[in-house]
Amino acid sequence: MQIQGKQFIQGQRSQQGQEQLHSVDATTGETLATFYAATEQEASAACVAAADAFQIFRQTTVQQRAELLNSIADELDALDDEFIHKVMQETALPEGRIRGERARTSGQMRLFATVLARGDFLGARIDTALPDRTPLPRPDLRQAKLGVGPVAVFGASNFPLAFSTAGGDTASALAAGCSVVMKAHTGHMITAEYVATAIITALEKCGLPGGVFNMLYGSNIGSVVVRHPEIQAVGFTGSLRGGRAICDMAAARSQPIPVFAEMSSINPMLLLPEALQNRGTEIARQLTDSVVAGCGQFCTNPGMIIGIRSPQFSAFLQQMSDNIASSPAQTMLNRGVLASYQHGLQELSQHPGVTHLAGQPQQGVQAFPQLFSAGAELLLNGDPLLQEEVFGPVSVVIEVESHQQLKAALRAIRGQLTITLLAEDNDLVDFADLVPVIEQKAGRLLVNGYPTGVEVCDAMVHGGPYPATSDSRGTSVGTLAIERYLRPVCYQNYPQHLLPAALQDSNPLKIDRLVNGKMTREAL
Amino acid sequence: MQIQGKQFIQGQRSQQGQEQLHSVDATTGETLATFYAATEQEASAACVAAADAFQIFRQTTVQQRAELLNSIADELDALDDEFIHKVMQETALPEGRIRGERARTSGQMRLFATVLARGDFLGARIDTALPDRTPLPRPDLRQAKLGVGPVAVFGASNFPLAFSTAGGDTASALAAGCSVVMKAHTGHMITAEYVATAIITALEKCGLPGGVFNMLYGSNIGSVVVRHPEIQAVGFTGSLRGGRAICDMAAARSQPIPVFAEMSSINPMLLLPEALQNRGTEIARQLTDSVVAGCGQFCTNPGMIIGIRSPQFSAFLQQMSDNIASSPAQTMLNRGVLASYQHGLQELSQHPGVTHLAGQPQQGVQAFPQLFSAGAELLLNGDPLLQEEVFGPVSVVIEVESHQQLKAALRAIRGQLTITLLAEDNDLVDFADLVPVIEQKAGRLLVNGYPTGVEVCDAMVHGGPYPATSDSRGTSVGTLAIERYLRPVCYQNYPQHLLPAALQDSNPLKIDRLVNGKMTREAL
Repeated sequence: MQIQGKQFIQGQRSQQGQEQLHSVDATTGETLATFYAATEQEASAACVAAADAFQIFRQTTVQQRAELLNSIADELDALDDEFIHKVMQETALPEGRIRGERARTSGQMRLFATVLARGDFLGARIDTALPDRTPLPRPDLRQAKLGVGPVAVFGASNFPLAFSTAGGDTASALAAGCSVVMKAHTGHMITAEYVATAIITALEKCGLPGGVFNMLYGSNIGSVVVRHPEIQAVGFTGSLRGGRAICDMAAARSQPIPVFAEMSSINPMLLLPEALQNRGTEIARQLTDSVVAGCGQFCTNPGMIIGIRSPQFSAFLQQMSDNIASSPAQTMLNRGVLASYQHGLQELSQHPGVTHLAGQPQQGVQAFPQLFSAGAELLLNGDPLLQEEVFGPVSVVIEVESHQQLKAALRAIRGQLTITLLAEDNDLVDFADLVPVIEQKAGRLLVNGYPTGVEVCDAMVHGGPYPATSDSRGTSVGTLAIERYLRPVCYQNYPQHLLPAALQDSNPLKIDRLVNGKMTREAL
Repeated sequence: MQIQGKQFIQGQRSQQGQEQLHSVDATTGETLATFYAATEQEASAACVAAADAFQIFRQTTVQQRAELLNSIADELDALDDEFIHKVMQETALPEGRIRGERARTSGQMRLFATVLARGDFLGARIDTALPDRTPLPRPDLRQAKLGVGPVAVFGASNFPLAFSTAGGDTASALAAGCSVVMKAHTGHMITAEYVATAIITALEKCGLPGGVFNMLYGSNIGSVVVRHPEIQAVGFTGSLRGGRAICDMAAARSQPIPVFAEMSSINPMLLLPEALQNRGTEIARQLTDSVVAGCGQFCTNPGMIIGIRSPQFSAFLQQMSDNIASSPAQTMLNRGVLASYQHGLQELSQHPGVTHLAGQPQQGVQAFPQLFSAGAELLLNGDPLLQEEVFGPVSVVIEVESHQQLKAALRAIRGQLTITLLAEDNDLVDFADLVPVIEQKAGRLLVNGYPTGVEVCDAMVHGGPYPATSDSRGTSVGTLAIERYLRPVCYQNYPQHLLPAALQDSNPLKIDRLVNGKMTREAL
């Protein structure tokens, strides 16, 4: 495919500006292709195109939207080996990972197509008229959820496919009937161009307007999109600083809009005594694997390890240190990510309360895994350094004195995507009092698992209290993600022909509906 | 009952400050009782008490919480005639309205008790383990919704019971398992003290900590509560200025929190041609009733009437003018509300594009209903005055030239709680193209009804796009209101004894659950 490097606006390619951006090979630094940064006018045009297309797209049936999602999935799966090769060049991620992530991305589209068929996201509720009720009759009232409007999506650096152009935010927005203005991540613009082209092809095949999906290149164009009056919600995956800036912009609009930003998580691992005793060596191996997997470039990378002081914990630490020290360096997604990693390591190294435990000296253009330890008091006293995610293959160990201090440490931790207990059955009885604390700190709670690896399914929550995300009521992975882009609308005394299909008497969608307080699939 | 005028903190009464507030008779201006404004320390103590109580309250079963809500309902219903009399004195609302509103308030508590029994709010989802799946096994994943934490609630002036101390925000927060810090409205503090006492009595009878419900008096103490780190969400009903200030404060916190503020709506009424021709006189009468009902002090008061120029619309206008001119003055909720009403009328009168159609000159301490008209161009050009709610018995008529201009006017309108079509069957065919516009502008869409009168039921939406509310994804009336205070949590590989009841294999709550993509009530 010929890379044009121009914006995708209303199904057309646009290049009004002269500012250039370059896609570079993550390993060699060589320039792969040239892109043009969107102008403010182009960014506005994309938002207007999304708003115009929304007027058509919001009226599509759930079947039509399911067809679109399946068609996008097919186009993604049809992308050729050259595509895989280009993603590998742009991100330094290995082929197996890219192929797996592509399958996950198309699978995610198809999963949302099944959600559309199931129809529970519509939240259909009907309270039928009670004309004879005293003192006042009750009118006929029916509620369903509709898409909020055009959604701005910011692609993530670390998942060029699953959290980017055709990722979970895009899939859930399209499923909700919302049009999209995508800000392509500068770290993988060739990848973005391939995927956006696939989406536009799918829109054409489905006879839908190209403005349903628009994409912009550029480093600073996001603020124009977030502030544009046509944009009604934002999905973002990235840094705390970037996410918070978007939240602040969205909150300061004359019409504030919701932002779902997935930002920063250190994903504490709590190592309980009997588990350490029974399988400390195994845990040290598995935990190292999880810390270094994908060069630590996962939102759910285990950045903090907490255990109670004991000979077993000391033995575990020694093994974990050996494992980390012998883990090879890997190439990161791009030089910016590497620079941030090095900066984060420097801050940890220079902190008087933090000790370097293991890891080869950082050198060259690859990232070496590292292990640090810090005193429990740093956590208990709210030292911000310990709470901040260092994106990359690094973890900080906290040794606490007691069960009680472990609980206090947990309480001192900010909001997380995940918190994990590595525990035997007895541990889970002895330490059951930790669970209510964990429930209030994280979106996903694991027992005897590792948080890297986020299943795309109905029950997944990839969210959590701030600063893990900007709004703990959302998830950016799994089918519940669609709820972020929906709002309820109530129809009072509406005639059948003006009601959405979900609310018509005959229940043409054959969905579960809450009718007069009872869930039923029957027609009225 | 003896009015103490002190804060309710952790089930105790507290008076640390000396600043006094007075409850006054809305009709005579006479002082009825003295209250003490909460100090900042008291406000913080209330938030801490709510956070401590939340640790217990969040662990209660749905049955326990239902018992609490039913108990509060019983206590409200048991309040005596002296209570009714005091509310009447404080608000100038008639006895029938107060008794009706009390029944609505206790009914709302009981309705949320049935929601707890139904359990759909828990959003239980289970994806069972697939240990043999390739390339990777799937872990056991289970999701349920939990309360977000302590909620700050701001009572409304216009519903001393249904939107205040034990109103919809409190009921939905308690149902969600959240504790509450209430800011009593200064317009009806005696009412608030009676109701808070009833809630505390119910908490005691149910053996629950008093800190589950705390209440503060004061004019400026709300900002301390909204900014307090223990507060996790806010419910508010009131003015656009007040609501927006709270949103801005909440968004500027180091941990931003969601705010559900119901603020400003002019509730446009669209009068379609055949309806006007067939029943213009009846509409003029019913619409006048709706405009003047409760002295226009409803969030859903019809503040704008739009019709297409025709002899029928002119005849309707004449009748509406006559009706408004002959409608008697009424006493408003308090002198502040009356002053705001007079100020709003003055702004309308002084606007060169606005004409006074009917209504007696404002004088004395009562509010006279008023009718104005304004040119369609004011709306189309985005004149802010037309978009702002004037709280009280006033409506502004907009005469448009055509179907097309009617649609353009609708597009120019900001977000609303309600938009109503008064229409015959033929109108609803001819003007069907308005419905998609209306769907994007309001939370509740009516045909041949009047928006005053908000049913408390499953299908109700009392919400809508900004500035009707701060977040169109919520409702402050009806059972969906509980969703505002819930967040999803996912349990991965958790043992049965650490799972919430909603997610245990045996389905002890006997609720509908989404198990491997299918809704079922069966045990696993």
